Amino acid sequence: MRNLKVFIAYNGADYHGFQRQDNAISVQEVVENCIGKLLKIPAPVIYGCSRTDTGVHARRFCFNVHLDSRIPCEGFMKGMNTLLPPDIAVLSCEDAPEDFHARYCTKGKEYVYLITNAPQRDVFFQKLAYHYPYELDIEKMNEAAQLLVGEHDFAAFCRAEGKARMKSTVREIYSFTAERKEGVCELRISGSGFLYNMVRICAGTLIYVSEGKLTPDDIKKALETGDRNYAGKTLPPEGLYLNEVWY
Amino acid sequence: MRNLKVFIAYNGADYHGFQRQDNAISVQEVVENCIGKLLKIPAPVIYGCSRTDTGVHARRFCFNVHLDSRIPCEGFMKGMNTLLPPDIAVLSCEDAPEDFHARYCTKGKEYVYLITNAPQRDVFFQKLAYHYPYELDIEKMNEAAQLLVGEHDFAAFCRAEGKARMKSTVREIYSFTAERKEGVCELRISGSGFLYNMVRICAGTLIYVSEGKLTPDDIKKALETGDRNYAGKTLPPEGLYLNEVWY
Repeated sequence: MRNLKVFIAYNGADYHGFQRQDNAISVQEVVENCIGKLLKIPAPVIYGCSRTDTGVHARRFCFNVHLDSRIPCEGFMKGMNTLLPPDIAVLSCEDAPEDFHARYCTKGKEYVYLITNAPQRDVFFQKLAYHYPYELDIEKMNEAAQLLVGEHDFAAFCRAEGKARMKSTVREIYSFTAERKEGVCELRISGSGFLYNMVRICAGTLIYVSEGKLTPDDIKKALETGDRNYAGKTLPPEGLYLNEVWY
Repeated sequence: MRNLKVFIAYNGADYHGFQRQDNAISVQEVVENCIGKLLKIPAPVIYGCSRTDTGVHARRFCFNVHLDSRIPCEGFMKGMNTLLPPDIAVLSCEDAPEDFHARYCTKGKEYVYLITNAPQRDVFFQKLAYHYPYELDIEKMNEAAQLLVGEHDFAAFCRAEGKARMKSTVREIYSFTAERKEGVCELRISGSGFLYNMVRICAGTLIYVSEGKLTPDDIKKALETGDRNYAGKTLPPEGLYLNEVWY
Protein backbone atom coordinates (compact mmCIF):
# COMPACT_ATOMS: atom_id res chain seq x y z
CA MET A 1 0.00 0.00 0.00
CA ARG A 2 1.25 3.48 -0.79
CA ASN A 3 0.76 6.34 1.64
CA LEU A 4 0.18 9.59 -0.26
CA LYS A 5 0.82 12.95 1.42
CA VAL A 6 -1.33 15.56 -0.27
CA PHE A 7 -1.61 19.31 0.23
CA ILE A 8 -4.85 21.00 -0.75
CA ALA A 9 -6.33 24.51 -0.57
CA TYR A 10 -10.01 25.14 -0.10
CA ASN A 11 -12.43 28.00 0.14
CA GLY A 12 -14.56 26.83 3.08
CA ALA A 13 -17.50 29.20 2.51
CA ASP A 14 -19.79 26.47 1.22
CA TYR A 15 -18.62 23.58 3.44
CA HIS A 16 -19.50 22.43 6.92
CA GLY A 17 -15.83 22.16 7.80
CA PHE A 18 -13.26 19.60 6.73
CA GLN A 19 -14.55 16.60 8.60
CA ARG A 20 -17.09 14.20 7.10
CA GLN A 21 -20.55 14.56 8.64
CA ASP A 22 -23.95 13.05 8.22
CA ASN A 23 -26.39 15.33 6.42
CA ALA A 24 -23.95 18.16 5.70
CA ILE A 25 -21.40 18.62 2.94
CA SER A 26 -17.75 18.55 4.03
CA VAL A 27 -14.42 18.97 2.27
CA GLN A 28 -13.44 15.45 3.33
CA GLU A 29 -16.46 13.88 1.68
CA VAL A 30 -15.92 15.72 -1.60
CA VAL A 31 -12.20 14.85 -1.73
CA GLU A 32 -12.79 11.20 -0.83
CA ASN A 33 -15.47 10.83 -3.48
CA CYS A 34 -13.20 12.40 -6.11
CA ILE A 35 -10.37 9.98 -5.27
CA GLY A 36 -12.81 7.11 -5.63
CA LYS A 37 -13.98 8.44 -8.97
CA LEU A 38 -10.45 9.07 -10.25
CA LEU A 39 -9.16 5.60 -9.36
CA LYS A 40 -12.46 3.79 -9.98
CA ILE A 41 -12.50 2.40 -6.42
CA PRO A 42 -14.86 2.84 -3.45
CA ALA A 43 -14.16 6.24 -1.83
CA PRO A 44 -11.18 5.71 0.54
CA VAL A 45 -10.77 7.36 3.94
CA ILE A 46 -8.42 10.35 4.05
CA TYR A 47 -6.75 11.59 7.26
CA GLY A 48 -6.74 15.38 7.61
CA CYS A 49 -4.23 17.44 9.60
CA SER A 50 -7.00 19.23 11.44
CA ARG A 51 -10.71 19.64 11.78
CA THR A 52 -11.77 23.03 10.56
CA ASP A 53 -15.11 24.62 11.44
CA THR A 54 -17.89 25.48 9.04
CA GLY A 55 -16.83 28.38 6.82
CA VAL A 56 -13.12 28.23 7.74
CA HIS A 57 -10.63 28.23 4.82
CA ALA A 58 -7.30 26.56 4.15
CA ARG A 59 -4.46 27.86 2.04
CA ARG A 60 -2.40 24.73 2.78
CA PHE A 61 -4.07 21.72 4.39
CA CYS A 62 -2.44 18.28 4.47
CA PHE A 63 -4.06 14.86 4.38
CA ASN A 64 -2.73 11.37 3.85
CA VAL A 65 -4.42 8.44 2.21
CA HIS A 66 -3.47 4.77 1.81
CA LEU A 67 -3.92 3.65 -1.77
CA ASP A 68 -3.35 0.46 -3.67
CA SER A 69 -2.70 2.28 -6.96
CA ARG A 70 0.29 2.94 -9.21
CA ILE A 71 -0.94 6.33 -10.40
CA PRO A 72 1.99 8.79 -10.65
CA CYS A 73 1.77 11.69 -8.15
CA GLU A 74 1.59 14.20 -11.01
CA GLY A 75 -1.30 12.25 -12.55
CA PHE A 76 -3.11 12.08 -9.22
CA MET A 77 -2.80 15.85 -8.81
CA LYS A 78 -3.93 16.71 -12.34
CA GLY A 79 -6.76 14.18 -12.32
CA MET A 80 -8.03 15.43 -8.96
CA ASN A 81 -7.91 19.05 -10.07
CA THR A 82 -10.09 18.15 -13.04
CA LEU A 83 -12.65 16.36 -10.87
CA LEU A 84 -12.72 18.66 -7.81
CA PRO A 85 -15.09 21.65 -7.66
CA PRO A 86 -13.49 25.09 -8.18
CA ASP A 87 -13.33 25.80 -4.43
CA ILE A 88 -10.93 22.91 -3.69
CA ALA A 89 -7.53 22.39 -5.36
CA VAL A 90 -4.70 19.90 -4.93
CA LEU A 91 -1.41 21.81 -4.54
CA SER A 92 1.05 18.92 -4.28
CA CYS A 93 1.24 15.17 -3.86
CA GLU A 94 4.11 12.89 -2.85
CA ASP A 95 4.75 9.39 -1.54
CA ALA A 96 5.28 9.43 2.23
CA PRO A 97 6.69 6.82 4.65
CA GLU A 98 4.24 4.15 5.72
CA ASP A 99 3.85 5.61 9.22
CA PHE A 100 3.21 9.20 8.13
CA HIS A 101 -0.08 10.51 9.53
CA ALA A 102 -1.22 14.02 8.58
CA ARG A 103 -2.74 14.67 12.01
CA TYR A 104 -0.38 12.98 14.47
CA CYS A 105 2.90 13.93 12.78
CA THR A 106 2.38 17.71 12.74
CA LYS A 107 5.16 19.80 14.30
CA GLY A 108 3.23 23.03 14.09
CA LYS A 109 0.69 25.07 12.22
CA GLU A 110 0.19 28.63 11.10
CA TYR A 111 -3.18 30.36 10.88
CA VAL A 112 -4.07 33.70 9.36
CA TYR A 113 -7.12 35.72 10.40
CA LEU A 114 -8.22 38.36 7.88
CA ILE A 115 -10.13 41.47 8.91
CA THR A 116 -11.36 43.99 6.34
CA ASN A 117 -10.83 47.24 8.18
CA ALA A 118 -12.51 50.16 6.43
CA PRO A 119 -15.78 52.04 7.05
CA GLN A 120 -17.56 50.16 4.22
CA ARG A 121 -17.56 46.39 3.73
CA ASP A 122 -15.30 45.00 1.01
CA VAL A 123 -17.52 43.30 -1.58
CA PHE A 124 -14.62 41.11 -2.74
CA PHE A 125 -14.06 39.55 0.71
CA GLN A 126 -17.58 38.27 1.19
CA LYS A 127 -17.23 35.09 3.30
CA LEU A 128 -13.45 35.52 3.08
CA ALA A 129 -12.85 37.96 5.96
CA TYR A 130 -14.41 39.46 9.07
CA HIS A 131 -15.47 43.07 8.56
CA TYR A 132 -14.58 45.56 11.28
CA PRO A 133 -15.49 49.15 10.34
CA TYR A 134 -13.59 51.16 13.02
CA GLU A 135 -9.88 51.94 12.89
CA LEU A 136 -7.80 49.23 14.56
CA ASP A 137 -4.87 50.13 16.79
CA ILE A 138 -2.29 47.81 15.21
CA GLU A 139 0.47 48.83 17.64
CA LYS A 140 -1.60 48.00 20.71
CA MET A 141 -2.68 44.73 19.11
CA ASN A 142 0.93 43.71 18.45
CA GLU A 143 1.92 44.51 22.02
CA ALA A 144 -0.91 42.35 23.36
CA ALA A 145 -0.10 39.56 20.89
CA GLN A 146 3.43 39.30 22.30
CA LEU A 147 1.99 38.42 25.72
CA LEU A 148 0.51 35.25 24.21
CA VAL A 149 3.76 34.11 22.57
CA GLY A 150 5.52 31.27 24.39
CA GLU A 151 4.32 28.21 26.30
CA HIS A 152 1.16 28.94 28.29
CA ASP A 153 -2.00 27.32 29.55
CA PHE A 154 -4.55 28.59 27.04
CA ALA A 155 -7.63 27.32 28.92
CA ALA A 156 -9.11 30.85 28.83
CA PHE A 157 -8.75 30.87 25.03
CA CYS A 158 -10.70 27.69 24.39
CA ARG A 159 -14.37 27.05 23.83
CA ALA A 160 -15.80 25.23 26.86
CA GLU A 161 -16.92 22.12 24.98
CA GLY A 162 -13.42 21.77 23.54
CA LYS A 163 -11.78 21.79 26.97
CA ALA A 164 -13.55 18.62 28.11
CA ARG A 165 -12.01 16.71 25.17
CA MET A 166 -8.45 17.80 25.97
CA LYS A 167 -5.90 16.22 28.27
CA SER A 168 -3.98 19.46 28.52
CA THR A 169 -4.65 23.05 27.53
CA VAL A 170 -0.96 23.99 27.47
CA ARG A 171 0.29 25.02 24.03
CA GLU A 172 3.24 26.91 22.64
CA ILE A 173 2.72 29.93 20.40
CA TYR A 174 5.79 30.58 18.23
CA SER A 175 4.74 33.97 16.92
CA PHE A 176 1.69 36.21 16.71
CA THR A 177 1.62 39.44 14.70
CA ALA A 178 -0.85 41.99 13.37
CA GLU A 179 -0.25 43.90 10.14
CA ARG A 180 -2.40 46.16 7.99
CA LYS A 181 -2.10 46.47 4.20
CA GLU A 182 -4.54 48.57 2.17
CA GLY A 183 -7.61 48.17 4.33
CA VAL A 184 -7.00 44.52 5.25
CA CYS A 185 -5.64 43.63 8.68
CA GLU A 186 -3.87 40.29 8.77
CA LEU A 187 -3.29 38.46 12.05
CA ARG A 188 -0.72 35.68 11.75
CA ILE A 189 -0.26 33.10 14.49
CA SER A 190 1.92 30.00 14.51
CA GLY A 191 2.33 27.41 17.22
CA SER A 192 2.74 23.80 18.24
CA GLY A 193 -0.99 23.23 18.24
CA PHE A 194 -4.25 25.01 18.89
CA LEU A 195 -7.26 24.42 21.11
CA TYR A 196 -10.87 24.51 19.90
CA ASN A 197 -11.66 28.07 18.67
CA MET A 198 -8.32 29.27 20.08
CA VAL A 199 -7.26 31.35 17.06
CA ARG A 200 -10.68 32.99 16.77
CA ILE A 201 -10.63 33.84 20.50
CA CYS A 202 -7.05 35.16 20.30
CA ALA A 203 -8.11 37.33 17.33
CA GLY A 204 -11.16 38.59 19.24
CA THR A 205 -8.93 39.38 22.22
CA LEU A 206 -6.76 41.64 20.06
CA ILE A 207 -9.90 43.45 18.84
CA TYR A 208 -10.97 44.03 22.45
CA VAL A 209 -7.49 45.34 23.27
CA SER A 210 -7.72 47.75 20.32
CA GLU A 211 -11.11 48.92 21.63
CA GLY A 212 -9.76 49.33 25.19
CA LYS A 213 -12.18 46.68 26.51
CA LEU A 214 -9.22 44.55 27.62
CA THR A 215 -5.79 45.60 28.91
CA PRO A 216 -2.44 43.76 28.82
CA ASP A 217 -3.11 42.97 32.49
CA ASP A 218 -6.33 41.17 31.59
CA ILE A 219 -4.42 38.97 29.16
CA LYS A 220 -1.90 38.05 31.85
CA LYS A 221 -4.83 37.21 34.15
CA ALA A 222 -6.47 35.13 31.43
CA LEU A 223 -3.29 33.05 31.09
CA GLU A 224 -2.87 32.73 34.87
CA THR A 225 -6.45 31.93 35.83
CA GLY A 226 -7.79 30.17 32.74
CA ASP A 227 -10.91 32.36 33.07
CA ARG A 228 -12.57 32.83 29.66
CA ASN A 229 -13.96 36.22 30.83
CA TYR A 230 -10.52 37.81 30.65
CA ALA A 231 -10.25 36.95 26.93
CA GLY A 232 -12.12 38.53 24.02
CA LYS A 233 -15.05 37.31 21.96
CA THR A 234 -14.80 34.49 19.42
CA LEU A 235 -14.55 36.06 15.97
CA PRO A 236 -16.61 34.47 13.16
CA PRO A 237 -15.17 31.62 11.06
CA GLU A 238 -15.09 33.37 7.68
CA GLY A 239 -11.87 35.28 8.52
CA LEU A 240 -9.90 32.18 9.48
CA TYR A 241 -7.39 30.44 7.20
CA LEU A 242 -5.20 27.45 7.99
CA ASN A 243 -2.10 28.85 6.32
CA GLU A 244 0.58 26.17 6.75
CA VAL A 245 1.22 22.82 8.44
CA TRP A 246 4.75 21.70 9.32
CA TYR A 247 6.05 18.13 9.63
CA MET B 1 -34.37 68.31 -7.31
CA ARG B 2 -31.02 67.22 -5.94
CA ASN B 3 -28.49 65.40 -8.12
CA LEU B 4 -26.59 62.84 -6.04
CA LYS B 5 -23.19 61.57 -7.21
CA VAL B 6 -22.63 58.14 -5.72
CA PHE B 7 -19.66 55.77 -5.88
CA ILE B 8 -20.31 52.06 -5.38
CA ALA B 9 -18.27 48.84 -5.48
CA TYR B 10 -19.72 45.56 -6.61
CA ASN B 11 -18.74 41.96 -7.04
CA GLY B 12 -20.29 41.25 -10.42
CA ALA B 13 -20.13 37.44 -10.21
CA ASP B 14 -23.87 37.05 -9.70
CA TYR B 15 -25.09 39.91 -11.92
CA HIS B 16 -25.83 40.21 -15.59
CA GLY B 17 -23.83 43.41 -15.75
CA PHE B 18 -24.66 46.87 -14.48
CA GLN B 19 -27.42 47.79 -16.86
CA ARG B 20 -31.07 47.00 -16.16
CA GLN B 21 -32.40 44.16 -18.31
CA ASP B 22 -35.61 42.22 -18.74
CA ASN B 23 -35.50 38.74 -17.20
CA ALA B 24 -31.99 39.01 -15.72
CA ILE B 25 -30.76 40.52 -12.50
CA SER B 26 -28.56 43.61 -12.85
CA VAL B 27 -26.69 45.85 -10.42
CA GLN B 28 -28.77 48.81 -11.61
CA GLU B 29 -32.05 47.12 -10.77
CA VAL B 30 -30.91 46.16 -7.28
CA VAL B 31 -29.57 49.64 -6.50
CA GLU B 32 -32.65 51.40 -7.88
CA ASN B 33 -34.96 49.18 -5.85
CA CYS B 34 -32.95 49.84 -2.68
CA ILE B 35 -33.14 53.61 -3.20
CA GLY B 36 -36.90 53.31 -3.62
CA LYS B 37 -37.15 51.24 -0.46
CA LEU B 38 -34.89 53.58 1.54
CA LEU B 39 -36.79 56.73 0.57
CA LYS B 40 -40.23 55.09 0.33
CA ILE B 41 -40.65 56.23 -3.28
CA PRO B 42 -41.05 54.37 -6.59
CA ALA B 43 -37.60 53.10 -7.68
CA PRO B 44 -35.89 56.05 -9.45
CA VAL B 45 -33.66 55.76 -12.54
CA ILE B 46 -29.93 55.91 -11.86
CA TYR B 47 -27.37 56.84 -14.52
CA GLY B 48 -24.23 54.69 -14.47
CA CYS B 49 -20.77 55.72 -15.71
CA SER B 50 -20.52 52.62 -17.86
CA ARG B 51 -22.21 49.42 -18.88
CA THR B 52 -20.29 46.47 -17.56
CA ASP B 53 -20.73 42.95 -18.94
CA THR B 54 -22.06 39.94 -17.05
CA GLY B 55 -19.56 38.88 -14.37
CA VAL B 56 -17.44 42.07 -14.55
CA HIS B 57 -16.62 43.76 -11.22
CA ALA B 58 -16.24 47.35 -10.08
CA ARG B 59 -14.01 48.68 -7.33
CA ARG B 60 -15.24 52.22 -7.98
CA PHE B 61 -18.28 52.79 -10.17
CA CYS B 62 -20.12 56.13 -10.27
CA PHE B 63 -23.78 56.80 -10.86
CA ASN B 64 -25.96 59.87 -10.43
CA VAL B 65 -29.59 60.06 -9.47
CA HIS B 66 -32.10 62.92 -9.28
CA LEU B 67 -33.96 62.86 -5.99
CA ASP B 68 -36.59 64.99 -4.35
CA SER B 69 -35.41 64.13 -0.82
CA ARG B 70 -33.64 65.91 2.01
CA ILE B 71 -31.83 62.82 3.29
CA PRO B 72 -28.25 63.71 4.36
CA CYS B 73 -25.55 62.11 2.18
CA GLU B 74 -24.18 60.21 5.19
CA GLY B 75 -27.67 58.85 5.94
CA PHE B 76 -28.17 57.84 2.31
CA MET B 77 -24.88 55.92 2.36
CA LYS B 78 -25.52 54.17 5.66
CA GLY B 79 -29.13 53.36 4.82
CA MET B 80 -28.19 51.95 1.43
CA ASN B 81 -25.43 49.80 2.92
CA THR B 82 -27.97 48.28 5.28
CA LEU B 83 -30.39 47.48 2.47
CA LEU B 84 -27.98 46.40 -0.29
CA PRO B 85 -26.88 42.76 -0.61
CA PRO B 86 -23.31 41.97 0.58
CA ASP B 87 -21.91 42.07 -2.96
CA ILE B 88 -22.75 45.76 -3.52
CA ALA B 89 -21.59 48.63 -1.28
CA VAL B 90 -21.95 52.41 -1.39
CA LEU B 91 -18.47 53.98 -0.94
CA SER B 92 -19.36 57.67 -1.01
CA CYS B 93 -22.20 60.07 -1.76
CA GLU B 94 -22.24 63.81 -2.41
CA ASP B 95 -24.45 66.50 -3.92
CA ALA B 96 -23.37 67.27 -7.49
CA PRO B 97 -24.21 70.19 -9.83
CA GLU B 98 -27.52 69.88 -11.63
CA ASP B 99 -25.86 69.09 -14.97
CA PHE B 100 -23.55 66.34 -13.66
CA HIS B 101 -24.07 63.07 -15.53
CA ALA B 102 -22.06 60.01 -14.48
CA ARG B 103 -21.70 58.77 -18.03
CA TYR B 104 -21.28 61.90 -20.14
CA CYS B 105 -19.01 63.82 -17.76
CA THR B 106 -16.25 61.19 -17.44
CA LYS B 107 -12.72 62.38 -18.19
CA GLY B 108 -11.23 58.91 -18.06
CA LYS B 109 -11.37 55.47 -16.54
CA GLU B 110 -9.01 52.89 -15.17
CA TYR B 111 -9.53 49.15 -15.44
CA VAL B 112 -7.63 46.33 -13.79
CA TYR B 113 -7.51 42.81 -15.21
CA LEU B 114 -6.50 40.12 -12.70
CA ILE B 115 -4.86 36.86 -13.76
CA THR B 116 -4.03 34.13 -11.24
CA ASN B 117 -0.74 32.85 -12.60
CA ALA B 118 0.32 29.61 -10.93
CA PRO B 119 0.12 25.94 -11.98
CA GLN B 120 -2.95 25.31 -9.77
CA ARG B 121 -6.09 27.44 -9.66
CA ASP B 122 -6.49 29.80 -6.71
CA VAL B 123 -9.61 28.77 -4.80
CA PHE B 124 -9.98 32.26 -3.32
CA PHE B 125 -10.23 33.98 -6.72
CA GLN B 126 -13.14 31.92 -8.02
CA LYS B 127 -15.09 34.28 -10.34
CA LEU B 128 -12.67 37.06 -9.33
CA ALA B 129 -9.79 36.41 -11.76
CA TYR B 130 -8.85 34.59 -14.96
CA HIS B 131 -6.64 31.60 -14.31
CA TYR B 132 -3.58 31.14 -16.52
CA PRO B 133 -1.38 28.21 -15.42
CA TYR B 134 1.82 28.85 -17.45
CA GLU B 135 4.48 31.36 -16.53
CA LEU B 136 3.80 34.78 -18.02
CA ASP B 137 6.60 36.85 -19.52
CA ILE B 138 5.86 40.11 -17.71
CA GLU B 139 8.70 42.01 -19.42
CA LYS B 140 7.49 41.12 -22.93
CA MET B 141 3.92 42.00 -21.89
CA ASN B 142 5.00 45.42 -20.64
CA GLU B 143 6.90 46.14 -23.85
CA ALA B 144 3.84 45.23 -25.92
CA ALA B 145 1.55 47.26 -23.64
CA GLN B 146 3.59 50.40 -24.35
CA LEU B 147 2.75 50.13 -28.06
CA LEU B 148 -0.92 50.61 -27.21
CA VAL B 149 -0.34 53.73 -25.09
CA GLY B 150 -1.30 57.00 -26.78
CA GLU B 151 -4.04 58.01 -29.22
CA HIS B 152 -4.82 55.25 -31.69
CA ASP B 153 -7.63 53.78 -33.74
CA PHE B 154 -8.53 50.72 -31.65
CA ALA B 155 -10.91 49.18 -34.23
CA ALA B 156 -8.91 45.91 -34.06
CA PHE B 157 -9.45 45.80 -30.29
CA CYS B 158 -13.23 46.03 -30.35
CA ARG B 159 -15.91 43.40 -30.61
CA ALA B 160 -17.58 43.63 -34.04
CA GLU B 161 -21.08 44.36 -32.75
CA GLY B 162 -19.67 47.24 -30.69
CA LYS B 163 -18.06 48.88 -33.70
CA ALA B 164 -21.37 49.42 -35.46
CA ARG B 165 -22.64 51.49 -32.50
CA MET B 166 -19.62 53.80 -32.46
CA LYS B 167 -19.04 57.01 -34.36
CA SER B 168 -15.29 56.66 -33.90
CA THR B 169 -12.98 53.91 -32.71
CA VAL B 170 -10.17 56.36 -31.83
CA ARG B 171 -9.32 56.38 -28.12
CA GLU B 172 -6.41 57.53 -25.99
CA ILE B 173 -4.71 55.11 -23.60
CA TYR B 174 -2.91 56.99 -20.82
CA SER B 175 -1.02 54.04 -19.39
CA PHE B 176 -0.95 50.24 -19.57
CA THR B 177 1.22 48.11 -17.29
CA ALA B 178 1.63 44.47 -16.21
CA GLU B 179 2.86 43.53 -12.75
CA ARG B 180 3.06 40.25 -10.84
CA LYS B 181 2.73 39.92 -7.05
CA GLU B 182 2.64 36.51 -5.34
CA GLY B 183 1.03 34.51 -8.09
CA VAL B 184 -1.38 37.22 -9.25
CA CYS B 185 -0.66 39.20 -12.41
CA GLU B 186 -2.35 42.59 -12.50
CA LEU B 187 -2.85 44.45 -15.79
CA ARG B 188 -3.72 48.11 -15.27
CA ILE B 189 -4.99 50.27 -18.11
CA SER B 190 -6.25 53.83 -18.02
CA GLY B 191 -7.61 55.94 -20.83
CA SER B 192 -10.08 58.50 -22.11
CA GLY B 193 -12.61 55.81 -22.89
CA PHE B 194 -12.86 52.22 -23.99
CA LEU B 195 -14.60 50.36 -26.84
CA TYR B 196 -16.76 47.28 -26.36
CA ASN B 197 -14.59 44.44 -24.92
CA MET B 198 -11.47 46.57 -25.52
CA VAL B 199 -9.80 45.89 -22.16
CA ARG B 200 -10.44 42.16 -22.39
CA ILE B 201 -8.99 42.08 -25.94
CA CYS B 202 -5.97 44.19 -24.90
CA ALA B 203 -5.39 41.76 -21.99
CA GLY B 204 -5.71 38.77 -24.32
CA THR B 205 -3.25 40.41 -26.70
CA LEU B 206 -0.63 40.61 -23.94
CA ILE B 207 -1.17 36.90 -23.19
CA TYR B 208 -0.60 36.07 -26.87
CA VAL B 209 2.57 38.20 -26.83
CA SER B 210 3.80 36.30 -23.76
CA GLU B 211 3.12 33.03 -25.60
CA GLY B 212 4.89 34.23 -28.74
CA LYS B 213 1.68 33.96 -30.78
CA LEU B 214 1.82 37.71 -31.49
CA THR B 215 4.82 40.00 -31.98
CA PRO B 216 5.18 43.75 -31.39
CA ASP B 217 4.91 44.06 -35.20
CA ASP B 218 1.49 42.41 -35.13
CA ILE B 219 0.31 44.99 -32.61
CA LYS B 220 1.50 47.83 -34.84
CA LYS B 221 -0.35 46.20 -37.75
CA ALA B 222 -3.48 45.80 -35.63
CA LEU B 223 -3.45 49.55 -34.88
CA GLU B 224 -2.74 50.46 -38.52
CA THR B 225 -5.19 48.14 -40.25
CA GLY B 226 -7.96 47.76 -37.67
CA ASP B 227 -7.88 44.03 -38.40
CA ARG B 228 -9.10 42.04 -35.37
CA ASN B 229 -6.91 39.08 -36.43
CA TYR B 230 -3.74 40.91 -35.41
CA ALA B 231 -5.00 41.23 -31.82
CA GLY B 232 -5.37 38.52 -29.18
CA LYS B 233 -8.38 36.66 -27.89
CA THR B 234 -11.02 38.23 -25.64
CA LEU B 235 -10.29 37.16 -22.06
CA PRO B 236 -13.28 36.15 -19.89
CA PRO B 237 -15.19 38.76 -17.85
CA GLU B 238 -14.38 37.47 -14.34
CA GLY B 239 -10.89 39.03 -14.34
CA LEU B 240 -12.11 42.53 -15.21
CA TYR B 241 -12.56 45.34 -12.66
CA LEU B 242 -13.58 48.91 -13.31
CA ASN B 243 -11.06 50.43 -10.92
CA GLU B 244 -11.63 54.19 -11.10
CA VAL B 245 -13.63 56.84 -12.95
CA TRP B 246 -12.38 60.40 -13.23
CA TYR B 247 -14.47 63.58 -13.64
